[in-house]
Amino acid sequence: MAQERAEEHEAEDLPALTEDLVESVLTATEAGDAALLAELLEPLHGADIADLLEQVTTAERREILRLYGREMDGEILTEIDESIREEVIEQIPADVLAEAVRELDSDDVVDLIEDLEEVQQEAILEALDETDRAAVEQSLTWPENSAGRLMQREVVVAPLHWTVAEAIGFLQREDWLPDQFYHVILVDPAHHPVGYVTLGKILSSKPETALTAITEDSFRTISARQEEGDVAYAFNQYHLISAPVVDDDGRLVGVITIDDAMNVLDEEHEEDILRLAGVGEESSISDSVLETVRQRLPWLVANLFTASLSAIVISQFQATISALVALAALMPIVASTGGIAGTQSLAVAVRALATRDLTASNARRVVLREIGAGLVNGLSLALLLGVAGGLIFGHVELGVVLGLAMIVNQLVAALGGVMVPLTLERLGLDPALASGTFVTTLTDVMGFFAFLGLASWVLI
Amino acid sequence: MAQERAEEHEAEDLPALTEDLVESVLTATEAGDAALLAELLEPLHGADIADLLEQVTTAERREILRLYGREMDGEILTEIDESIREEVIEQIPADVLAEAVRELDSDDVVDLIEDLEEVQQEAILEALDETDRAAVEQSLTWPENSAGRLMQREVVVAPLHWTVAEAIGFLQREDWLPDQFYHVILVDPAHHPVGYVTLGKILSSKPETALTAITEDSFRTISARQEEGDVAYAFNQYHLISAPVVDDDGRLVGVITIDDAMNVLDEEHEEDILRLAGVGEESSISDSVLETVRQRLPWLVANLFTASLSAIVISQFQATISALVALAALMPIVASTGGIAGTQSLAVAVRALATRDLTASNARRVVLREIGAGLVNGLSLALLLGVAGGLIFGHVELGVVLGLAMIVNQLVAALGGVMVPLTLERLGLDPALASGTFVTTLTDVMGFFAFLGLASWVLI
Repeated sequence: MAQERAEEHEAEDLPALTEDLVESVLTATEAGDAALLAELLEPLHGADIADLLEQVTTAERREILRLYGREMDGEILTEIDESIREEVIEQIPADVLAEAVRELDSDDVVDLIEDLEEVQQEAILEALDETDRAAVEQSLTWPENSAGRLMQREVVVAPLHWTVAEAIGFLQREDWLPDQFYHVILVDPAHHPVGYVTLGKILSSKPETALTAITEDSFRTISARQEEGDVAYAFNQYHLISAPVVDDDGRLVGVITIDDAMNVLDEEHEEDILRLAGVGEESSISDSVLETVRQRLPWLVANLFTASLSAIVISQFQATISALVALAALMPIVASTGGIAGTQSLAVAVRALATRDLTASNARRVVLREIGAGLVNGLSLALLLGVAGGLIFGHVELGVVLGLAMIVNQLVAALGGVMVPLTLERLGLDPALASGTFVTTLTDVMGFFAFLGLASWVLI
Repeated sequence: MAQERAEEHEAEDLPALTEDLVESVLTATEAGDAALLAELLEPLHGADIADLLEQVTTAERREILRLYGREMDGEILTEIDESIREEVIEQIPADVLAEAVRELDSDDVVDLIEDLEEVQQEAILEALDETDRAAVEQSLTWPENSAGRLMQREVVVAPLHWTVAEAIGFLQREDWLPDQFYHVILVDPAHHPVGYVTLGKILSSKPETALTAITEDSFRTISARQEEGDVAYAFNQYHLISAPVVDDDGRLVGVITIDDAMNVLDEEHEEDILRLAGVGEESSISDSVLETVRQRLPWLVANLFTASLSAIVISQFQATISALVALAALMPIVASTGGIAGTQSLAVAVRALATRDLTASNARRVVLREIGAGLVNGLSLALLLGVAGGLIFGHVELGVVLGLAMIVNQLVAALGGVMVPLTLERLGLDPALASGTFVTTLTDVMGFFAFLGLASWVLI
């Protein structure tokens, strides 16, 4: 696949961040050749330059910025990952930073500064002219991760009574239009959005057509307080391209476009994967060793305590194990197969909760389905393992115990995998948060308990 | 969060798939009240109706389709999940199905039929008029999951030499324009795309402006053979809204829009999460018990074999365990903490490979970082566990063995978590595929081996 990709890039002849290019950039940087560096980086998209800065070491990054810092523009800045943003901003000359920030739309400035330290925030806000600064400061009054932070305030609106000709005339006269816009939003006199018209419709309709006659069916407004994850869901579910954002009184205050929503969808996915795995959600591949430890060690310590539960369960059966040491060798099989089953059930449930395919309406049915599947899986594994265990150890009862424990633990896994995220969601928490650790603890403890308990009852 | 969401929906007063609505729909269905059912469903977006059909049982679905089948339109059909698509299509009257399909753009028809059985495919193709059928059949000649399958063939093009006025005149004359389009693509006489102009630019520029003077910087073409995951990556990375698709000779054959790319991104996420968890990637919350078993049992059986490796390792140390049964109770702590650490490292690596932040350029540095973090985590956990183990069991050497085994296994976990996906990627396989099972097997086996091995050496 890696090779296939490389070929495609060649075929398209597009500037992209290839291994060779990174190599050349680092060579030019080491040689202190600013001209060559500029020549290499200039054709790249800002997003690729940002990726490059993330992929190199801190020392290399400092050198690149020393040589190329004056070329940093707004596009590159907005693409730089949070994990290195403060560091990069510190190293850009103040006048370059001010110039870069002035290029940006209000939503990009908000995104850039919302996680910076106050001193850096101030410096950037001061670079903006008064209107822009007011717009950014107002956006920052909306809650973190809300639609209000995500929206851009540059909106193209038209009064309800306009015709296509009037709209075209207006668009041709204005010179402040945003870089990217796809709809004209119709507003009533109180500035409430009531519909929108695609530019395609405006261009292909007769001049005398009323705008109200060609509005889109899919019109949906978004509250500025809405959580950005819900915004991304709405864009994906209803195939929105842009959507007007309204304040608490229903008045139009901005617009969100699909590229921002796509970005949020991608970030939410990152959170899901990292949270399921029990890693801090700010983990990044460019973290330092210490940052990595900070993101992971707390979860590992927590796991130490939950794992001690297994140890306590097992230690209750020391007499049983002493009597038949083979039990110690076999017990991880039951526990680990349960862990995998729990993870499977969990992944499907967490994903379905994220896409809202698992709701209160079908939760009961899904739980019953999980129990059914857990039972069938348990029986199949029990048969396989019971027969194998019985044959290998020449001990029929041991095979029966293995099989029964497997059935019990598969049921626990299937139920735990779906009940844990459902409960977290019901409690208003993120269903992915730590549910992996939770479910594997459950299947470990139950796996050891069922197996050793049955063994001490049947065998000893 | 669930409550917050409900409030938001209320505030917006938008039709949405609430629990109450599902309840009402099922009541109306049970009562056989087709009029009420239609009244309830009519205001919903097709995507919500499709979700509803996924959330109910097979029997309920059959009843809903019996009462509402004649209202099924193209929009609903394209939104229906693959897992129930064949079943739904079978239950829609043939004339309704034909009508629904005729409404759709070519890319939606391709998406609808590509996974159907041949008989159903034929039936749908026959419903199309000749031009549309040819377009669909041609799209189907591109490889599965390629840009060629994703693109729509309805493209708005303009010759290179046109002005804004000519473009507007053209758009006003044509009546076949696609529902959604955001750019006019400029082509040379051989039909190679050479740039594109946003509709916003066309509307806001003077009539005599040459189109070539207002093209977008971000222009990128996509090969029809490109893998759809790469297409989604390009849209997300470069903030594309639409992109022209070219054949092997570089000629324009279609266009992909961002809503399709967002959909692919979402599906890729689903695959990542499910594959990491070792579930068949077609798993869905609406699967039957048997389908669920089919998606999960193979991985569980595979795990049975890998888990047996742990059992074999442990059984080599039966004499050691007999001598000190506390070892049996403690060994899962080392293994399970290693499992969590491996999963953490794995999640970060798989995610970074998907976003292309982990590449050959920085792989070595990331591996070194992981080793460093594994060492620090291992030392911290060893200290904690070694002291606790030593105190609780009053056995200093046992504490030392626990601590040392923990350090070894944290290193194995950190390395395994990043090397396994990197190796899979290098081999041209999906880095998420089964890597969870792989890494936990590694940490289990190494955890037991290090702990019992050290114990038999130091303690016995």
